[in-house]
Amino acid sequence: MAAVDALIIDRMQSDVPVIPLLAEHIVAAGGKRMRPLITVAAARAAGGSIEHPLKLAASVEFIHTATLLHDDVVDGSERRRGKVAAHLIWGSATSVLVGDFLFARAFELMVETGQMRALGILARASSVIAAGEVLQLTRAHDLNLDRDTYLQIVSAKTAELFAAAAEAGAVGAGADDAAVAALRSYGLNLGLAFQLADDALDYGGSSEALGKNAGDDFREGKVTLPLLLAMAKTKGREDAFWDRTITKGERTEDDFRRARELIIGTGSVTATLDTAGDYADAAKAALRVLPQSDWRDALDQLADFAVSRAA
Amino acid sequence: MAAVDALIIDRMQSDVPVIPLLAEHIVAAGGKRMRPLITVAAARAAGGSIEHPLKLAASVEFIHTATLLHDDVVDGSERRRGKVAAHLIWGSATSVLVGDFLFARAFELMVETGQMRALGILARASSVIAAGEVLQLTRAHDLNLDRDTYLQIVSAKTAELFAAAAEAGAVGAGADDAAVAALRSYGLNLGLAFQLADDALDYGGSSEALGKNAGDDFREGKVTLPLLLAMAKTKGREDAFWDRTITKGERTEDDFRRARELIIGTGSVTATLDTAGDYADAAKAALRVLPQSDWRDALDQLADFAVSRAA
Repeated sequence: MAAVDALIIDRMQSDVPVIPLLAEHIVAAGGKRMRPLITVAAARAAGGSIEHPLKLAASVEFIHTATLLHDDVVDGSERRRGKVAAHLIWGSATSVLVGDFLFARAFELMVETGQMRALGILARASSVIAAGEVLQLTRAHDLNLDRDTYLQIVSAKTAELFAAAAEAGAVGAGADDAAVAALRSYGLNLGLAFQLADDALDYGGSSEALGKNAGDDFREGKVTLPLLLAMAKTKGREDAFWDRTITKGERTEDDFRRARELIIGTGSVTATLDTAGDYADAAKAALRVLPQSDWRDALDQLADFAVSRAA
Repeated sequence: MAAVDALIIDRMQSDVPVIPLLAEHIVAAGGKRMRPLITVAAARAAGGSIEHPLKLAASVEFIHTATLLHDDVVDGSERRRGKVAAHLIWGSATSVLVGDFLFARAFELMVETGQMRALGILARASSVIAAGEVLQLTRAHDLNLDRDTYLQIVSAKTAELFAAAAEAGAVGAGADDAAVAALRSYGLNLGLAFQLADDALDYGGSSEALGKNAGDDFREGKVTLPLLLAMAKTKGREDAFWDRTITKGERTEDDFRRARELIIGTGSVTATLDTAGDYADAAKAALRVLPQSDWRDALDQLADFAVSRAA
């Protein structure tokens, strides 16, 4: 992973000074590097070479960082990875353009590997992510959103990049079709587990654990699983409250506290974390076709980590 | 070009309804399709096959459209291609995300061609464009910008995509190195000619001819060649005016009229168009290593068209 980090730092350079400055703020500042770790570990677990996967891993992190920069502009988020969001320091315009720059750099790095199949996987993932973000945006404040559509949004905006990270790593390492399919399935389930845990933490966790402000989903009117579950449990009793705060977006400072109490009180955070745990189990089950190795163990532990952040 | 248009319409589809809607607003609404035409014509002029270049041409238009969507958000522009800018209809957030979607789709299309070298050319162009946009943004309102930096910005934000469009077309058609280099040089010079004419039109033309509001550069504090030339010619007389309107960004409704009079009156629009004409000539000169053909003639005429829009 040190080699991936070195590559990331090296390739985010530009002779336009604000680009490495802003990129360093978000890239070098931290983040869990889960996605590039998945790419490298998937390549290793499939028993393949590591040369191409290193560059693919850096590409994955660049794509992820580009989407973070754009998402924070789109959502008006204030914090990211425990720091002030980049757009509040350099402005939305610069954040959008540096996101574009990092996205383009991701493809330049992929081209260097000469791995067209891996490139196709990550190109497709990029359009799926963008479409998922648009879908989420158009369905914000919409209490008629059903669980299937919620899972469709989560699959697209989050799980697809985890799936592509694992699949590209396997493909880049020259893995056989069965291993590639298993690792894609691992990534997809891990991504679902991760996002569901994230959505649970938005109500049940602390801003410190999240690295961003708790309650952001509520303030942005995002309809997530904990909210859907709590709405069903409080049907007839709290409809006016949800309608006012989510559909109409009229919120006082106290409303998040009340939403939190309702969501935790109805067991909806726990139920969401349970569902996340099921996806983590599915991710681990997908790994079983691979031979036992330290790298398979690492992927296994990563699945536990994705849902344990809530603790 | 009808085949390119059909491909563009086909590949901007998505099951998230707002994506084709917004994309159609900007893609299908018009635009001169200069860049994809360059890709196709370059492939033909180099005597090569047209199969890959068609998809590369559609990719080039997608990249261009993505940058237009993001630029209009960044600049807060009100009009584009003679219509209301997309972000004023669907919001900045959707415009940013649909831009990302189209950018990703561009790479998906390129992957289908299997042409890694062409893909590398367009990936590199994409990061150069983003870096050029950032440079332009950080140097707005800066009257110390020199002509070289201005040309560096124009090369990156505009000419690079024209160069890459021509180069990728030639490479996709299997042209030899001399033809590839000639067509890249043609594109780069054509792009410079086009942007300089555009910058001249912002003061010397009508909003109708531009398809966007005349005076946008002035209002955004962009330091372009007509402004640089007029500032030099009015040195000692109008320094306070330029300082107030550009550096400080304090403008009344009458100021654009006055800037226009000073810039046209000092011959700075004409001088900028002359420089654009020189680049158009250089573009045409670069074509001379290619054998005579209808497609070479088309590229030749395109160079004249790029600077004649001012008429």
